Amino acid sequence: MRRVGALVFPGFELLDLFGPLEMFGLLKDYFDLQLVAETSEPVASNQQVRANPDVTFKDADRFDVLFVPGGMGTRREVSNTALLDWIRTVSESAEYVLSVCTGSLLLAGAGVLDGRRATTNKAAFTKIADQYPKVDWVKQARWVEDGKFITSSGVSAGMDMALGAIALMHDRETAEKVAMWSEYDWHEDKDWDPFAKIHGLI
Amino acid sequence: MRRVGALVFPGFELLDLFGPLEMFGLLKDYFDLQLVAETSEPVASNQQVRANPDVTFKDADRFDVLFVPGGMGTRREVSNTALLDWIRTVSESAEYVLSVCTGSLLLAGAGVLDGRRATTNKAAFTKIADQYPKVDWVKQARWVEDGKFITSSGVSAGMDMALGAIALMHDRETAEKVAMWSEYDWHEDKDWDPFAKIHGLI
Repeated sequence: MRRVGALVFPGFELLDLFGPLEMFGLLKDYFDLQLVAETSEPVASNQQVRANPDVTFKDADRFDVLFVPGGMGTRREVSNTALLDWIRTVSESAEYVLSVCTGSLLLAGAGVLDGRRATTNKAAFTKIADQYPKVDWVKQARWVEDGKFITSSGVSAGMDMALGAIALMHDRETAEKVAMWSEYDWHEDKDWDPFAKIHGLI
Repeated sequence: MRRVGALVFPGFELLDLFGPLEMFGLLKDYFDLQLVAETSEPVASNQQVRANPDVTFKDADRFDVLFVPGGMGTRREVSNTALLDWIRTVSESAEYVLSVCTGSLLLAGAGVLDGRRATTNKAAFTKIADQYPKVDWVKQARWVEDGKFITSSGVSAGMDMALGAIALMHDRETAEKVAMWSEYDWHEDKDWDPFAKIHGLI
């Protein structure tokens, strides 16, 4: 059983967070999900609707899996020292560190991606890559695995990555079962990424 | 601007709810999203993590769009008279009534699908279809449109349906823009449904 700490902050992107948590959450015997925020107040997403944190930064800084969604709120949170400190601390002991979309901006801001291969939202790619040159940013990838760090492209890519992570932590059959249960058409190839071209990155 | 009332109840399926709300929520000028529950307490999903209601049944029963997710909790809620009454009332005046997965069990339980074509989760299909014979259940469909009622297959199908609904309410270009923003590979054909075969329905 792996304990997943999923970060939430004001302006998180709904599907970045709940797409992957759907996939992990369908394996109740394998994953225990917790939403973690700076305070215990409900947190409004970029789509307005609100999630309810289970624990706060000061109550919980050890998880087997750290999960970081993106969203417009990352632009502000990348200057939030308490949040970046928490990411650094949790990353150190976590077995896996996952991000979706501009969640990788927060990981880069915390410095934990330095020297690592990673990807991010394709519309925001160039700006983020220019800002954090110590990260080896991959232009075309649905998701990128480098050691314990697994980072995905924008929003929907998080679901494909989550199934990839399940295949890595368990096996491919388990990931395929979860895709079938959720009637999801899994893009299993982590190099599948038509959006890199759409956004002129390749 | 359309006001969307999205029902939440204990044991709702995370992605049933938040996949479509991601799509609608990316069009902030077109849709105003509200989570509606029986009480104002945080509501635990089937994946445990909790959503925070914006309004309760007694505070709000008029919406332009009624949105009903599925999940294990529907098995209990289909006997909840307050919830079924609320669905009936909101459905009457709503311009559109949408469901994902076993959300159609709640619509059927409220009687609003009688004489209508509809679909549901493919693993639960036969049981639900046998229970509500007045509904014209469609075995193979990613989603089904019949008048103001738009019902989708299991979990992930909700995202394809939401984009279909956006195309219907606005236009196809708008739906394609939302798919691009969310780096989503939209199954635009509402008859695309490999899961009907997987579950032996065809």
